[in-house]
Amino acid sequence: MSIQRLTIIGVGLIGGSLARALKAADYCVEVVGCGRNVDSLRRGVELGVIDRFETDIPSAVSGADMVVLAAPVGSLEALFAQVVPHLDEGAVLTDVGSTKGSVVASAQAACGQVPNRFVPGHPIAGSERSGVEAADASLYRNRRVILTPLVHTAADAIDKVEAMWAAAGAVVESMGVEHHDQVLAATSHLPHLLAYALVDALAELDDKAEVFRYAAGGFRDFTRIASSDPRMWHDICLHNREALLGVLKHFAHHLDALAAAVERGDGATVLETFARAKRARDGFCEQLGEGPQSTE
Amino acid sequence: MSIQRLTIIGVGLIGGSLARALKAADYCVEVVGCGRNVDSLRRGVELGVIDRFETDIPSAVSGADMVVLAAPVGSLEALFAQVVPHLDEGAVLTDVGSTKGSVVASAQAACGQVPNRFVPGHPIAGSERSGVEAADASLYRNRRVILTPLVHTAADAIDKVEAMWAAAGAVVESMGVEHHDQVLAATSHLPHLLAYALVDALAELDDKAEVFRYAAGGFRDFTRIASSDPRMWHDICLHNREALLGVLKHFAHHLDALAAAVERGDGATVLETFARAKRARDGFCEQLGEGPQSTE
Repeated sequence: MSIQRLTIIGVGLIGGSLARALKAADYCVEVVGCGRNVDSLRRGVELGVIDRFETDIPSAVSGADMVVLAAPVGSLEALFAQVVPHLDEGAVLTDVGSTKGSVVASAQAACGQVPNRFVPGHPIAGSERSGVEAADASLYRNRRVILTPLVHTAADAIDKVEAMWAAAGAVVESMGVEHHDQVLAATSHLPHLLAYALVDALAELDDKAEVFRYAAGGFRDFTRIASSDPRMWHDICLHNREALLGVLKHFAHHLDALAAAVERGDGATVLETFARAKRARDGFCEQLGEGPQSTE
Repeated sequence: MSIQRLTIIGVGLIGGSLARALKAADYCVEVVGCGRNVDSLRRGVELGVIDRFETDIPSAVSGADMVVLAAPVGSLEALFAQVVPHLDEGAVLTDVGSTKGSVVASAQAACGQVPNRFVPGHPIAGSERSGVEAADASLYRNRRVILTPLVHTAADAIDKVEAMWAAAGAVVESMGVEHHDQVLAATSHLPHLLAYALVDALAELDDKAEVFRYAAGGFRDFTRIASSDPRMWHDICLHNREALLGVLKHFAHHLDALAAAVERGDGATVLETFARAKRARDGFCEQLGEGPQSTE
């Protein structure tokens, strides 16, 4: 079930780490990179992340038995249109986008219908670092990868994508597109939005009050995700808009209730909320500790 | 400038770590613990955090040249009333509360006026762990301690508290009470409120969607502070209510603007906000990297 020629379109942290992991596992005969930044592709070859690169998509795609779209979700519609006509018969196409509804919609818009050898995927892994220099063979080890195949997706294509991620060390699961987008809006997209908004709000105060000077480790951890790639998260937030705004509304309702309790000095409600949250967090950390670990 | 007898009222993470640090630095002849939980005090002696303990405040306080109130800020008014009448002449009193306006108000309410040998203090250090078992001699190393003395606070008392924290490895600074409370509301109290509110909001969804199952490292870091001691943070939020609600309002304004931009698909504003936040965060991390490190 190994891969003869793997083509990765977008050789950054995510695509580059997959390439490194599969090379380390001896799972691919050849890894071809493709992208718009030639310097970065050259660097990828120098670093041994990819074997060679192509700058035009038809050359990169033809002859590959596995093609991974690892570019920002905002660029995928254009990529589907360029890639799909040049795929070999039997080749499998997958992506790594953090939003799945929009990716499926992009494939449909570009190709008329979602190709049945395209398997939507999302490795729940990453880092606030980005670029091919950050590529890490162990990035996916024990991390979850969620596949969201459609009813007509070819079973052997799903199997091949699943086997590829397993070879990279990941734990693969499947769920529906909509469920994926709601879950990730809650635990990933909303926290990023909050972290960016908080840092931006405090930066405005900082001129006057030097607030960051007294920031502690808790604040550094809380805001770590605000150092993530702005372009990528811009794409994600806009492409999962509905689910993100839905869970933001749910959160805002809780925050308002908590703030109102603080305002009226309702200590019982404040304490109960904090204690309930602590139990939930301690509980899921324990769960995570037992199961697959993830970073993003 | 060392201490003959240090009495710590409230031997948990913060008080216990101070005791450990000063013992490691050979800065105290004797450390006496005091508190309401006898098992915990016994454990403190067993672990070598304190030399002995008292359960009644007059015995704990008399004979001490330095008394540190390391109990939750909600308990300080009652403690001032019990402690101050039994202090030796020349003894210095300080606290470690995360809110300073409320602590000064508590001292005033309990004593008629704020004692001039009381030096309000706040070590910006901590952990989501709590209790004497978590006491750590290196907790304050290179961390900031903020003192907020009043105009009538005795200079030699300030010097003595400053020297104590320096012996524990901390970097000591002074600022006004109100400035302290605003800065800490922004970088500490608000993030805690947000983290508790987020985890609580998602826990409600979790029954249906198993959202925490797919939480990644970014989410774990973002919510780490929601595992902090609920009682302590309840006290802090209620005792710094005005500053906290003020900065929450400022944040909510930014979040609303960002959400509105996402809703209307205004990618330019979203990208600009994210990029500005990333620059601010990368900038302050660099600053922090150069200066004293802090965890809380």
